[in-house]
Amino acid sequence: MNSQVDFPLSREAQRLKRSMMRQLIAVTARPDIISFAGGLPAPELLPVEAWSECSQRVLKDEGAKALQYGPPFPPLQAALAELMQARGVAVEPDQVFITSGCQQGLHIAGRLLMDADSAVVLDQYVFPGVRQAFGGFDRDLREVPTHVERGFDLDALEEATSPQRGPAPRAIINVPDFHNPLGTSLSEEARVRLVALARERNLALVEDDPYGLLRFSGEALLPLVGRAPERTIYLGSFSKLVAPALRTGWMIAPAGLTEESVDLESSAWIQRSLADFLHAGRLEPHLAQVRTTYRQRRDRMTTALETHFPASARFSRPQGGMFIWVELDDHYDTLALLPEVVEAGVAYIPGAAFSSEGGHNTMRLNFSNASPERIDEGMAILGQALRERMPA
Amino acid sequence: MNSQVDFPLSREAQRLKRSMMRQLIAVTARPDIISFAGGLPAPELLPVEAWSECSQRVLKDEGAKALQYGPPFPPLQAALAELMQARGVAVEPDQVFITSGCQQGLHIAGRLLMDADSAVVLDQYVFPGVRQAFGGFDRDLREVPTHVERGFDLDALEEATSPQRGPAPRAIINVPDFHNPLGTSLSEEARVRLVALARERNLALVEDDPYGLLRFSGEALLPLVGRAPERTIYLGSFSKLVAPALRTGWMIAPAGLTEESVDLESSAWIQRSLADFLHAGRLEPHLAQVRTTYRQRRDRMTTALETHFPASARFSRPQGGMFIWVELDDHYDTLALLPEVVEAGVAYIPGAAFSSEGGHNTMRLNFSNASPERIDEGMAILGQALRERMPA
Repeated sequence: MNSQVDFPLSREAQRLKRSMMRQLIAVTARPDIISFAGGLPAPELLPVEAWSECSQRVLKDEGAKALQYGPPFPPLQAALAELMQARGVAVEPDQVFITSGCQQGLHIAGRLLMDADSAVVLDQYVFPGVRQAFGGFDRDLREVPTHVERGFDLDALEEATSPQRGPAPRAIINVPDFHNPLGTSLSEEARVRLVALARERNLALVEDDPYGLLRFSGEALLPLVGRAPERTIYLGSFSKLVAPALRTGWMIAPAGLTEESVDLESSAWIQRSLADFLHAGRLEPHLAQVRTTYRQRRDRMTTALETHFPASARFSRPQGGMFIWVELDDHYDTLALLPEVVEAGVAYIPGAAFSSEGGHNTMRLNFSNASPERIDEGMAILGQALRERMPA
Repeated sequence: MNSQVDFPLSREAQRLKRSMMRQLIAVTARPDIISFAGGLPAPELLPVEAWSECSQRVLKDEGAKALQYGPPFPPLQAALAELMQARGVAVEPDQVFITSGCQQGLHIAGRLLMDADSAVVLDQYVFPGVRQAFGGFDRDLREVPTHVERGFDLDALEEATSPQRGPAPRAIINVPDFHNPLGTSLSEEARVRLVALARERNLALVEDDPYGLLRFSGEALLPLVGRAPERTIYLGSFSKLVAPALRTGWMIAPAGLTEESVDLESSAWIQRSLADFLHAGRLEPHLAQVRTTYRQRRDRMTTALETHFPASARFSRPQGGMFIWVELDDHYDTLALLPEVVEAGVAYIPGAAFSSEGGHNTMRLNFSNASPERIDEGMAILGQALRERMPA
């Protein structure tokens, strides 16, 4: 911690360092860099025109009402319940809570589930916000090894929740569709087993689902909240579906938990504009375009991985979302390599940024933000840097 | 807690009940009710036109950039540093962090300052979000009695921070200007003593300041962050200054604390639109109008208190902000009275909603949201209900 502050801070603040990921994304935001680092939607697909129309109509027609405090807006709740129903999840509109996105949802879930000494189960590699929301104090974060193509190791998961491991954890946190950073999805069999385990051990499931609607190949599987609604806290977000700047998401939780949970305050204006956007049927055509584009970019990146990377590299083959996970041979150090490839004009996130320890030979590659040509160009540079460092 | 949830929850969640205030505000949102309950800006002054222009210009001129993820936007940080400088607070733009409002700021401050068993000092009556952000676990919330005209009892404050009371608290939380719910402001003498005490005991100060720029009478006093920048976490908000639906505020904290503090993510679009609004000089004329209107309404409510309420009622005389605090004779029960006066067409918040215990004979009255005529009308109804219940 910085020595300029001399009054006492929490132990958590003393441990805090500015997240590696945030630092890296800042470094790599230079426009001359081909960045596979961030998790940004394709800029050319952001619905600027449509959003301008919806947000202006709301201000024009509803005036001051749109600028006041915003309790949950029933037409938006209804549209979200419909969106979930289309994925096979039956939910009543008043069970849908409006959040400022998945990160706020994770913090609320952490508050509802975790005491100062509770345990929780999560993947070995997670979005850093998960540790922020569930860690700290004397909490026990039980990390489960992950597989580059399947995600969660379910045998290890079973072991991590067993009474031999100590007090029962409060929840299993997961991203069943297009995991960040892994890009993996849980199979039907894995979902069934995960839900059975949660029931057997009486744990909550936290389903973090910012990418679920970005499926561009393979078969859609029922989300966990559709399988175990009595114990699932589901978190959705418009950041990847419409635009990050809306700062709006939603939460579905067992009846009785949300009712009394937490006072949420969302923008009346954004809620009304989103309801307008959804009711006018603007989401589906927009998502269709996004999915087509992301599939092309994933294909391009996968081909480039096969062409340019060392043959020993293992990587995930996501059916949606934004990220591919790469595991290189053990002698690679992706954190040490990064400054050199940034110098050469390319960036990624070293896997260590998602891990409490380990992951030195892994990286997360984002395929949504760069054009196919830039993907080719960047992957060739990256592949060359890796091949130059292959053992003789 | 609701019996539908059978998996284990945190102790905090088990204690949670939907906040009394939120329930009351929902009940009293009926348009036929004259509501002194909420904390809503005057709807007719919300800058719908100006905001529409700024937000559209940004979408039109900056396109996709406005809809992506939003790191702190330097022109907004610069405008906020200027705004603080006009109040006598010297601050560098890069020390200004953009938040989603004071509530997020309180949560961040809680995370930076509080361990699971830390103590903190606060007013006897506080906005419920303060207890949400700093309470829970085994924390010791030391409540200091408040005076209806002066706020904090500083002798009691000194006692609450003394070594005899146990481990040193981590911070003193306060609203120096136009306290919610009390309407009081700290005098120059009180500010000097508060800062000296924080230095002597080496505590942080959390300065919650959503109303400071809404001063309509009396002399502006230097905020705490201008007196003890080395130990003050200052929280500002646009909710009352421009519009609640922007969900945007700012935080100033000692260098070294903010740098590494917490990853904040704010809407690029709203940040750019606000920067536009501020740089175009739209804030000051807007605030001038708000102040004039709120002063008239405070005067109207104060006169009505003197005319209609029992002579024994004590009340604060705010020099700004939105709220008047009323202390009635001990035999009144404002919680029990509320349903009856709602029936008669008026609403307020019973003081107990801001207190962990006590306050049965107190109420918070909001004067910003209703027209002068509705204030007269509502206060007459309320006064009559109180006089009917005077002891014979």
